[in-house]
Amino acid sequence: MSNPTDEPTPTPPSATVRNGPVVSREEFDALFATVRTWGRWAPADRGAWNRVTADHVRRATALVRSGTVVPMGRPWDTVSGPDNGKPALHYMSDLGDVEPPEPSTHKDFIGADYHGKGVSHLDALSHIAYRGRLYDGGTARELVGAGGARFGDVSALGPLVTKGVLLDLPAVLGNAWLEPGQAVRAADVVAAEAALDVNIGEGDAVLLRVGRFRRRRELGAWDLDAAGAGFHVDAMPLLAERGIALLGSDGDSDVRPSPVEGLNSPVHALAVAAMGVPLLDNLDLEALSVAAAETGRYEFLLLVAPLNIPGGTGSPVNPIAVL
Amino acid sequence: MSNPTDEPTPTPPSATVRNGPVVSREEFDALFATVRTWGRWAPADRGAWNRVTADHVRRATALVRSGTVVPMGRPWDTVSGPDNGKPALHYMSDLGDVEPPEPSTHKDFIGADYHGKGVSHLDALSHIAYRGRLYDGGTARELVGAGGARFGDVSALGPLVTKGVLLDLPAVLGNAWLEPGQAVRAADVVAAEAALDVNIGEGDAVLLRVGRFRRRRELGAWDLDAAGAGFHVDAMPLLAERGIALLGSDGDSDVRPSPVEGLNSPVHALAVAAMGVPLLDNLDLEALSVAAAETGRYEFLLLVAPLNIPGGTGSPVNPIAVL
Amino acid sequence: MSNPTDEPTPTPPSATVRNGPVVSREEFDALFATVRTWGRWAPADRGAWNRVTADHVRRATALVRSGTVVPMGRPWDTVSGPDNGKPALHYMSDLGDVEPPEPSTHKDFIGADYHGKGVSHLDALSHIAYRGRLYDGGTARELVGAGGARFGDVSALGPLVTKGVLLDLPAVLGNAWLEPGQAVRAADVVAAEAALDVNIGEGDAVLLRVGRFRRRRELGAWDLDAAGAGFHVDAMPLLAERGIALLGSDGDSDVRPSPVEGLNSPVHALAVAAMGVPLLDNLDLEALSVAAAETGRYEFLLLVAPLNIPGGTGSPVNPIAVL
Amino acid sequence: MSNPTDEPTPTPPSATVRNGPVVSREEFDALFATVRTWGRWAPADRGAWNRVTADHVRRATALVRSGTVVPMGRPWDTVSGPDNGKPALHYMSDLGDVEPPEPSTHKDFIGADYHGKGVSHLDALSHIAYRGRLYDGGTARELVGAGGARFGDVSALGPLVTKGVLLDLPAVLGNAWLEPGQAVRAADVVAAEAALDVNIGEGDAVLLRVGRFRRRRELGAWDLDAAGAGFHVDAMPLLAERGIALLGSDGDSDVRPSPVEGLNSPVHALAVAAMGVPLLDNLDLEALSVAAAETGRYEFLLLVAPLNIPGGTGSPVNPIAVL
Repeated sequence: MSNPTDEPTPTPPSATVRNGPVVSREEFDALFATVRTWGRWAPADRGAWNRVTADHVRRATALVRSGTVVPMGRPWDTVSGPDNGKPALHYMSDLGDVEPPEPSTHKDFIGADYHGKGVSHLDALSHIAYRGRLYDGGTARELVGAGGARFGDVSALGPLVTKGVLLDLPAVLGNAWLEPGQAVRAADVVAAEAALDVNIGEGDAVLLRVGRFRRRRELGAWDLDAAGAGFHVDAMPLLAERGIALLGSDGDSDVRPSPVEGLNSPVHALAVAAMGVPLLDNLDLEALSVAAAETGRYEFLLLVAPLNIPGGTGSPVNPIAVL
Repeated sequence: MSNPTDEPTPTPPSATVRNGPVVSREEFDALFATVRTWGRWAPADRGAWNRVTADHVRRATALVRSGTVVPMGRPWDTVSGPDNGKPALHYMSDLGDVEPPEPSTHKDFIGADYHGKGVSHLDALSHIAYRGRLYDGGTARELVGAGGARFGDVSALGPLVTKGVLLDLPAVLGNAWLEPGQAVRAADVVAAEAALDVNIGEGDAVLLRVGRFRRRRELGAWDLDAAGAGFHVDAMPLLAERGIALLGSDGDSDVRPSPVEGLNSPVHALAVAAMGVPLLDNLDLEALSVAAAETGRYEFLLLVAPLNIPGGTGSPVNPIAVL
Repeated sequence: MSNPTDEPTPTPPSATVRNGPVVSREEFDALFATVRTWGRWAPADRGAWNRVTADHVRRATALVRSGTVVPMGRPWDTVSGPDNGKPALHYMSDLGDVEPPEPSTHKDFIGADYHGKGVSHLDALSHIAYRGRLYDGGTARELVGAGGARFGDVSALGPLVTKGVLLDLPAVLGNAWLEPGQAVRAADVVAAEAALDVNIGEGDAVLLRVGRFRRRRELGAWDLDAAGAGFHVDAMPLLAERGIALLGSDGDSDVRPSPVEGLNSPVHALAVAAMGVPLLDNLDLEALSVAAAETGRYEFLLLVAPLNIPGGTGSPVNPIAVL
Repeated sequence: MSNPTDEPTPTPPSATVRNGPVVSREEFDALFATVRTWGRWAPADRGAWNRVTADHVRRATALVRSGTVVPMGRPWDTVSGPDNGKPALHYMSDLGDVEPPEPSTHKDFIGADYHGKGVSHLDALSHIAYRGRLYDGGTARELVGAGGARFGDVSALGPLVTKGVLLDLPAVLGNAWLEPGQAVRAADVVAAEAALDVNIGEGDAVLLRVGRFRRRRELGAWDLDAAGAGFHVDAMPLLAERGIALLGSDGDSDVRPSPVEGLNSPVHALAVAAMGVPLLDNLDLEALSVAAAETGRYEFLLLVAPLNIPGGTGSPVNPIAVL
């Protein structure tokens, strides 16, 4: 039976997946305790975004050189596929024939179960619990219900304006992309900083490019839950030490398969639940990679403006870099 | 029968509505021809956003003084009411009991038929047609279908970074708010510029505050389609002459009832279909008003990052001012 | 401010609401224990529908005389209002312009948060818990989660074919409708049986008409949560004794305000959680009333075919009477 | 990359697909003219359901023997896959923690873009246009808009109670299922009538079983748009001659690939647009097949109760057979 679409046939990753050393659950729990920042901030549910002071905002806006604006939100994807099991909804509700005559109006409905691998989105602190506890120690079962999250919702976060740093790993390594399943480790982060002439500091947003959307465009979509490039947990103490405010990626920051025993998304658990660092998943970083390469600057003004959804565990977003 | 909610009983506007002089359809059509910018830009469906050059972006970022970040997106409103006939949707899709055990995840679905009076949103150029034509002259019926808009969609706009100017009319007039139905006329704009020490120029975003959400909080919601404060059409030639890129309001920019015979939303028709100026509707400008009053500065860096929805006639947004 | 629609202005119910004698929580709990059928059936989550045997189905189909088919589902209501706070969704997804050319296809999306007062729907046994327990005694918190109900879902019910009995109270009383807030008590049920020449028996479906949709058509919609005609709890032991399988109404079967202290929907609690009797809410019984009056027969073949939604707490339905 | 689910790997159909003789567009148009019933009925948008008189309803109910009730609606499928590209939505909106305390309530939202291959549904007459015309000759572009269908909507159909006939082809042929792509031709229909001792007559509903869901359960899901068993167009004159009211299948009645040049769904075009015969797609006929085989009776009382959706082009349904 032939493939009914024109998309290229997905190519599975190479056999020699390098997702890094196996980590036991005990080692992970020790790591969790090390990077944990519970009790540090008020309001607690802004977590590491409390690091971003007005002073930081000013310094970030001062990074602007060319005035080039680069968005990172991938197109609203209404077509199901290996990395889009819950396709977004988009329906026209008025085609100029519903409301009274003049002017005629065109309207539409959008919808999305946006967590997953299809929608560019922000994870608020209520998105993840580890051992039943949200960031700052509250009990998930008491704090999150059918009415939404009463702690760590996306409205508590609000927008973020800070310095963004693009860790463009394929650019560093001279590859088109990282293979699915390939881990980015602490040493890789340090090497990338040197190669790209950037310095990850307090309150910064780190964006990891693994080249997912270039690979997807050339080879077709694949199941990121089965194999995706991202951070090994050993990179997290370094990022914690630097005091980052936000972590993002064109994947979802976690290398998959997970190197931690019995844990699906250990980087999510460390970033969100331990460090209070929200995540940006499924960013399209291709245009930003090109723009950064052209100017040689991998630091920029970053803007994230999540929708104001009380009780929401995150939001679809279209983050912007201003170079 | 008692009101089942705790909200205050809506108070209708005063009887002496002042929506300005009546405008005939012929006068309106002449106005439309005067402010029309069809054929001026490429790509056409970015319309007046083409005015915002990289240079303009740099100057806008240089406006930042305090580093204060103020969002304008009102809370995602899932409760129907007089100004929210199509309540937004928000459902939890995972409460830590759907996906495999660790970490547990909380997820949600959001949805909105976002045009209307309930959601803070951006109108792209495909939202409005006048006499069957979209901005730049294309035929609406050919360009917009069930699959979305093939011209003037929100993806064609992308994000906007520019100078924002807050026309805080209640602050100028010393009122808590403008009464529903009260028109803001060309002379009011000029007076507000002087009073607030701002200058509306090429590529700027003008945000009109009428105090809707303060009135709503104090007196309860009302039907904005029946009575809302906003611009009279006589303000539009002035704004066109200044070369604005974007127009927004805590209402929807149109004074209602419409002063133009046979036309519901004449400011929408002029801004979007004639001038190629996207609109921001239903912004919560209360916090921005307070912040501007405190600093005495009604100009700031404005950021609008609509979702990247191919074919979409707009997007829910959470615009940000950086003061 | 004028009413923007053509709908008649809602008329609140008369001041002398007669919702019956006040019932204390202790009396209610005793009542609950009296009518409870926990432990009686397998599978338990079909509850009282286990009473409807194949023999009952045959006898019900033998009731057909004229062959007239009367549906009871009210129109899918996408307009918010006092009794429709969560309007149903209906969007066209293809207008002949999305799929390949021939034949052209028209498609639509529907959606509904169907419990409430706007959608004709069936309540499955998982819809209601009393003191934390579902029908048959299971703990609600353990049995219902974000993935749906693991006990008492609508798929466990499946369809119902049985004898329907229309208790047309306005027809009995010679009124156009019962006033909102008026209680239907045990004695009223007995009197209606005599007046309408019907006999409520084992496995039957009882449909209570209070004339809501005639009143709504003539006087406009009102808030049924504040005032609605329905059963007083003192009617429930009688219905339990008769062994009914299903209870339905053009309201939601509960008189409101509730006569039971501290309890919003006592008839829901008794029917669903104690007796295992699913409910049909918001049926349009006007056509059935007319058809029954014409033939003088208030008994008929009733068919309910809920959608097969695993985990669902009910379903929108369009029940059918065959006279 | 391993398959992340436990589902069996889909097995493509055998190479020797037998979708019957190729039919030219001219031959198809002649066929269309032959079976066309335009202008025959009032109201026109009930089409062939006008054949089902009260007398027919009475005779259908008289078919009931055992009183066994068999539903045909497949489970609401929220998981995307090769035959479910637009997964249905199901979200819990209340888990006992949203509304006031007692009784606690569990509620859910459902949604579906139900046309396609995933949801058991009814196609109303507005679903299909051929050469720009709906059934009875009206112009599709004028009759169907963003507000829905003004002709041939599902509310115009209402419910159907009639005699159902199961053409259980695998039972006739002694196979577990028909291979995807296998055509059911006029001669097969005649042979099935004889083998199953049924007689398709005026006003009847014909249900074609090809064994799709047994194959799907055993071999996994596949793309029905690429290969599906169903009627060749040469069976349609026979069904037209018999005066059927409704056609249904566990596939979608059309053999695929289409044997008609330049036409995707020729049986849809003939049934809906020419004959005014609504279609039932994606029925789960496995239980009905077993029940029919046990009793040796392939005729029964059939009930279809679509939701009452004004403007809707169809409805999700759970049809019932009563044997």
